[in-house]
Amino acid sequence: MTPIEEKFHGLGVDNAPGQEIRKDQDSAAALAIGAMVEGPAVDFSHGDVDEDAFAPTPGALDAFIEGYQRGGTQAYTEYRGNAEIRAMVAGRLGTFTGCPVAPENELIITPGTQSALFLAVMSLVTAGDRVAIVQPDYFANRKLVAFAGAEAVPITMDHLTTTEGAGLDLTALEAAFRSGVKTFLFSNPNNPAGVVYAPAEIAAVVRLANTHGVTVIVDQLYSRLLYAGQTYTHLRASGIDPGQVVTIMGPSKTESLSGFRLGVAFGAPHLIARMEKLQAIVSLRAPGYCQAVLRTWFAEGEGWMAHRIAQHQAIRDDLLDVFHAMEGARVRAPQAGSYLFPRLPPLTVPASAFVRLLRAQAGVTVTPGTEFSPCAADSIRLNFSQNQERARLGAARIALLVERYRRA
Amino acid sequence: MTPIEEKFHGLGVDNAPGQEIRKDQDSAAALAIGAMVEGPAVDFSHGDVDEDAFAPTPGALDAFIEGYQRGGTQAYTEYRGNAEIRAMVAGRLGTFTGCPVAPENELIITPGTQSALFLAVMSLVTAGDRVAIVQPDYFANRKLVAFAGAEAVPITMDHLTTTEGAGLDLTALEAAFRSGVKTFLFSNPNNPAGVVYAPAEIAAVVRLANTHGVTVIVDQLYSRLLYAGQTYTHLRASGIDPGQVVTIMGPSKTESLSGFRLGVAFGAPHLIARMEKLQAIVSLRAPGYCQAVLRTWFAEGEGWMAHRIAQHQAIRDDLLDVFHAMEGARVRAPQAGSYLFPRLPPLTVPASAFVRLLRAQAGVTVTPGTEFSPCAADSIRLNFSQNQERARLGAARIALLVERYRRA
Repeated sequence: MTPIEEKFHGLGVDNAPGQEIRKDQDSAAALAIGAMVEGPAVDFSHGDVDEDAFAPTPGALDAFIEGYQRGGTQAYTEYRGNAEIRAMVAGRLGTFTGCPVAPENELIITPGTQSALFLAVMSLVTAGDRVAIVQPDYFANRKLVAFAGAEAVPITMDHLTTTEGAGLDLTALEAAFRSGVKTFLFSNPNNPAGVVYAPAEIAAVVRLANTHGVTVIVDQLYSRLLYAGQTYTHLRASGIDPGQVVTIMGPSKTESLSGFRLGVAFGAPHLIARMEKLQAIVSLRAPGYCQAVLRTWFAEGEGWMAHRIAQHQAIRDDLLDVFHAMEGARVRAPQAGSYLFPRLPPLTVPASAFVRLLRAQAGVTVTPGTEFSPCAADSIRLNFSQNQERARLGAARIALLVERYRRA
Repeated sequence: MTPIEEKFHGLGVDNAPGQEIRKDQDSAAALAIGAMVEGPAVDFSHGDVDEDAFAPTPGALDAFIEGYQRGGTQAYTEYRGNAEIRAMVAGRLGTFTGCPVAPENELIITPGTQSALFLAVMSLVTAGDRVAIVQPDYFANRKLVAFAGAEAVPITMDHLTTTEGAGLDLTALEAAFRSGVKTFLFSNPNNPAGVVYAPAEIAAVVRLANTHGVTVIVDQLYSRLLYAGQTYTHLRASGIDPGQVVTIMGPSKTESLSGFRLGVAFGAPHLIARMEKLQAIVSLRAPGYCQAVLRTWFAEGEGWMAHRIAQHQAIRDDLLDVFHAMEGARVRAPQAGSYLFPRLPPLTVPASAFVRLLRAQAGVTVTPGTEFSPCAADSIRLNFSQNQERARLGAARIALLVERYRRA
């Protein structure tokens, strides 16, 4: 393999959420037992933004149209985003996270949160570096590290046996920092498990980062969708050196605005400056007219977010009932976000085949656990931001197929 | 400097089009002679998409709204773009370029043409490679090569003394290919000069690429805006090995759809596959709802493009009059696109200061020639996709300031 072939060899997309259309169903057919299980198709690989599920925030389309009508000033913004919108969003994010954000040099608007992650990693990490990532965590994290030519140092998160916090292995994290890791990348709440880092865990991350001069990229994409009784700790407001942290958020998930491709990164000015330089050659800017939709962000109106959280919590609880009733399965209740990451009982077919059978025989799409950790082959991720009734029916069909393929 | 600091050191954005808001005007003030020259502000750094200049193609906003209303299937497309829209666009691009495009594996939709360029370069070039680029050419080309850790091998284009074709130094190109260059990146029509490569030049590029196994990335962003009597030769339909070419286009310029951030790359399937893998970690996909706007592309209706070309040609001719009348200036008439790249006569102030003075004293924004070639400090680029009257007034003010600062 040439160096460039090698670089792309590990960058798979066929198992990624949204790509299931590509899957070769034939390979699963040979293993299939029993008949089709009828019911409406459910795609748990991403949130459902249709009208009968979780539609985009009210006013989003109107804000886009107003942006379009504003013409050239909205189409051609600074690479880091329209200054007025940056000021508006920075103010709201400062309030939300508990620590001010300077709109002129501490924030960049990006085409989606994925872009913010890409730019942040590429602005910090270069070939030969070592980067701490959590296992399990968002599937793109290790791919980003690999693409930068760096080495990922996995830190285990034992969310299933932990009851307080995410269960991050802080001893391993400290050892990694001591051994020369200079960047730490993680999501909070965790994607795929939906667990939230405890105040003590965030305090430990801050202490270790400050002591060892490690820069932390924290992906807080789901931090607004916090369930009743949960506490969320914002890393950037917890005493970390402001030059050592970049926070990533966006309105793609809770707010169902993924179709507009909007994200933000905010934090250390020297990193935001690098991210803008890179954005200039990667995509120029977040889509100009779409940027105008950020005017609706954190301004959804009285009660909107509380209602949306309550709706998700009800679906979460329905699905937890299904997996709690499944003998041999293990699952922890998500504290935030819309992901559920159950570990299934032992099956007679390989986990990868089970995911394909689920789709072929039951019309249910989930994301295989191996996307999030090489050690999570027995888990599946469900994005339960779905129509409640369909989510219930889909989960019931998963349970049915687990029984069908259960190892005796 | 650390390796990452070094990587970003050369990636400037302050002189890039659209970033003029950042410029420090104070440094120019010290050199200023004479009074302000009054007149409407003209920003020649990018096209004007306002209603009284070149508004987006008819139906674009409606197509977006229809996409939004389609919901989840439009918000969450495959990473390479919605299959139905890819099929539609591939058919039209096959007809336009004179060689079929397979929608299933030869085309990817990207968030803007800049993204298509980034993905194409990063899918071909790795650290230590050598890449041939043209001088002058689009300012991001050399930055992309540098970011990949590769070395740019500049090939001169002598457009001012050539009358047939772009004036590419084919001897230098052959020498570069012989010396191990494996990638060639260029724009046709050339940005900034607006010149079109002659059939014989394209034939030579094809012959050299095929002989030496060089892959060519050709940025044809402005190839639809072809002036009366001009001939355009599509590289991909000229006998190049189909595995060695990627063509880049998009509706951002002629069609004024930049605010939607849409581009496409089409060509060698193994490279399109790599680009999709990379897009999955760079930005996931082109904005879902925006993708729907591509339905209007190459379907603008009878006469629309002919009218748009005629309007641009009239402005081009107005501006050529101004620079032809300017003693000591040199300019070649653009054959396609909306860029004019005049070389100015010797001035009493440095070229970089003159660009700042133009903005400060005359309200006219242009892009300095050094963005396109280190040897083009005496040139400025004007995007004349503007309101005709304002473009005329702006060009007259440039002429006035050239006289004010002319070296005796």
